[in-house]
Amino acid sequence: MPELFTVHTPPVAWARFVAHFQPPVRTERIATADALDRVLAEQPVSPQDLPEFARATVDGYAVVAVDTFGATPGLPAFLDLIGEVPMGKAATFALEPGAAALVHTGGMIPSGADAVVMIEDTQRVAAGYIEIFRPVAEGQNIVQVGEDIRRGQAILAPGHRLRPQDIGGLLALGITALTVAVPPVVGIISTGDEVVPPDSLVQPGQVRDINSYSLAGLAVRAGARAIRYGIVPDDRAALETAAARAVAACDIVVFSAGSSVSYRDMTADVIDGLGKPGVLVHGVSVKPGKPTILAVCDGKAVFGLPGNPVSAMVIFDLFITPAIGLLLGTQKPPQTTVTARLARNLASDSGREDYVQVRLEEREGELWAVPVLGKSNLIYTLVNAAGTIQIPLDANGLRAGAWVTVVRH
Amino acid sequence: MPELFTVHTPPVAWARFVAHFQPPVRTERIATADALDRVLAEQPVSPQDLPEFARATVDGYAVVAVDTFGATPGLPAFLDLIGEVPMGKAATFALEPGAAALVHTGGMIPSGADAVVMIEDTQRVAAGYIEIFRPVAEGQNIVQVGEDIRRGQAILAPGHRLRPQDIGGLLALGITALTVAVPPVVGIISTGDEVVPPDSLVQPGQVRDINSYSLAGLAVRAGARAIRYGIVPDDRAALETAAARAVAACDIVVFSAGSSVSYRDMTADVIDGLGKPGVLVHGVSVKPGKPTILAVCDGKAVFGLPGNPVSAMVIFDLFITPAIGLLLGTQKPPQTTVTARLARNLASDSGREDYVQVRLEEREGELWAVPVLGKSNLIYTLVNAAGTIQIPLDANGLRAGAWVTVVRH
Repeated sequence: MPELFTVHTPPVAWARFVAHFQPPVRTERIATADALDRVLAEQPVSPQDLPEFARATVDGYAVVAVDTFGATPGLPAFLDLIGEVPMGKAATFALEPGAAALVHTGGMIPSGADAVVMIEDTQRVAAGYIEIFRPVAEGQNIVQVGEDIRRGQAILAPGHRLRPQDIGGLLALGITALTVAVPPVVGIISTGDEVVPPDSLVQPGQVRDINSYSLAGLAVRAGARAIRYGIVPDDRAALETAAARAVAACDIVVFSAGSSVSYRDMTADVIDGLGKPGVLVHGVSVKPGKPTILAVCDGKAVFGLPGNPVSAMVIFDLFITPAIGLLLGTQKPPQTTVTARLARNLASDSGREDYVQVRLEEREGELWAVPVLGKSNLIYTLVNAAGTIQIPLDANGLRAGAWVTVVRH
Repeated sequence: MPELFTVHTPPVAWARFVAHFQPPVRTERIATADALDRVLAEQPVSPQDLPEFARATVDGYAVVAVDTFGATPGLPAFLDLIGEVPMGKAATFALEPGAAALVHTGGMIPSGADAVVMIEDTQRVAAGYIEIFRPVAEGQNIVQVGEDIRRGQAILAPGHRLRPQDIGGLLALGITALTVAVPPVVGIISTGDEVVPPDSLVQPGQVRDINSYSLAGLAVRAGARAIRYGIVPDDRAALETAAARAVAACDIVVFSAGSSVSYRDMTADVIDGLGKPGVLVHGVSVKPGKPTILAVCDGKAVFGLPGNPVSAMVIFDLFITPAIGLLLGTQKPPQTTVTARLARNLASDSGREDYVQVRLEEREGELWAVPVLGKSNLIYTLVNAAGTIQIPLDANGLRAGAWVTVVRH
């Protein structure tokens, strides 16, 4: 167990971790229609031009543009009306100069035509003829073949999280199945002799399990599937059994740690015995969250989180969400942030990243970030917070009135 | 059908709509553990103090604080070690002045004690005695009864979307079931003689269905359940049949409209016949998205969206996401935004809201919003965009270099 109790900065801790954790992205083939928010694991290429035929963008008449040049209401252009292109059908005729054909928005442009005159700028004068009151330029009111996307063009990129419009764009090309990343499985082991399930009647000295549910929620939000392995007592053999089960079934195992020092040492020992290289980091310069364990055990990522709910959430965001990203082959999704002014001075030690929970308050039209000053072992510090601000490693704190970026929960 | 073709600004259109659409929030009772991202439809109140007993926040000795005053390594305080409070158990003894008891982080503080000395600041000298090297103040290293939350205190608020920590906070109090809003059902009817299912081989003149899939994705993201009613031909009877089916089963019905003017008129007629008061708005001063229909038919919200994918998405965000919010009893969730500089001038007419799709590009450390200049009938305009910027009603455009807020997709 190298360098136990040597505290590392978050970037150094992460570098030590990823040096040993470079998992392959597991993939599966699913229907494009079911792929919302899944992570693309292939490079789709357009099998066709879109559209495959030139389409009208307005209701009107397909024409040869030069035939309309100079047309005005006083001196309209007269064209032969040779037919109509029905919606959903091919144009069965070609258009010669001097002719016009009725087309509908989205309908196919007959060959020979190179523009569409809007219906409002025309008048039917007699059967077989129309008057045109306004000229159109070549290409006007037409979507050209391949204007949306060309055959052979790459679409999106592996690692992209699929949005509603991406699903539409792929289906428009007939791409009805996709290779996407399989959601990683995160196993959560809650520990502590004092911890009981939430539906228990608590006895004096006991507390209900919080973290395994909160952490499962964070895992799901990050794109993983969460399995809760229940509550394990502070007992080495029980811990080893639960750990072995979880490591066998999951990509990432998270110990929501018992809180006493002796117990934390036991957790580190148990994690270190789960596989090679074992514990890589024990202690990070993050407040709250210092007693964190990062480990890789025979290819599985294993984390020991502080038992305090606030610390556990901060550390999850900092290390486990990115680890889930590695398994998905993607970056962390963009966070929802808001800029606000800090309502009071915050002290911090240089060389430590501080994460402070804040409420948001609007005062005279300005948004203020008001630190929630509960201890990190209080879950309602998080419940009462709208988001988190970070005081960087090299800062000594932040002054009241400073503009800060609040990452919303 | 009042004021057909009178174009309304988005705020006026919305006001006309909500004047007739004030749906009750349908609720259901579910397990708190399954309530992530669901909308709270009750006002939970804490049934207990949390914690219910004073807890240690460190490993150490519970003491009476005054017994430690003035203690130093050179002149330690000597206290009787009278026992240990095991984790998860009640303290079975009371602490008298002059005494100390071993406690663990999270463990119960025995009655009589009012502070905890960290184990690092103590030494066991002989069986039954400890030395204390540093004084503690009353309350130090203790979480008091009710310090997290007090019995009877309101938790969160109806309309709140439950986050991971909220689930934890409620379970910590033994609140294992919650009343939440039932996800509204959004029915989507895709129309047009030219539209075919995505798995079809397309014939000349045909296009694959895009919008019913993109719009279903937007509905799901907004907290609703989406039902696709397939593709209906441009035929009044077929449209009426599909509309009646959808209105009976859904809270919101969306027509992803056929694009021709004649067809749009037919859609408006069919919607107007679905119930009272019928069509409220036909035309909004939004680009793209002008030919939009807002209707309320016997208590159901009905929308006619432009067939262009970009317009459909803009209008969905503008009206249907908030309508889903009404049914959920909640506000629109905070959007993910990013500030960037506009890469080129954008013109806009005053009196019209413009929505422009943009890519994000980093240039020399600055983020730039580059308009994606595809037409609004091109789905790849959306696929290639990272987000949307708005040019307000009263603006004549935006200058290159201006700071803009990009709402990410």
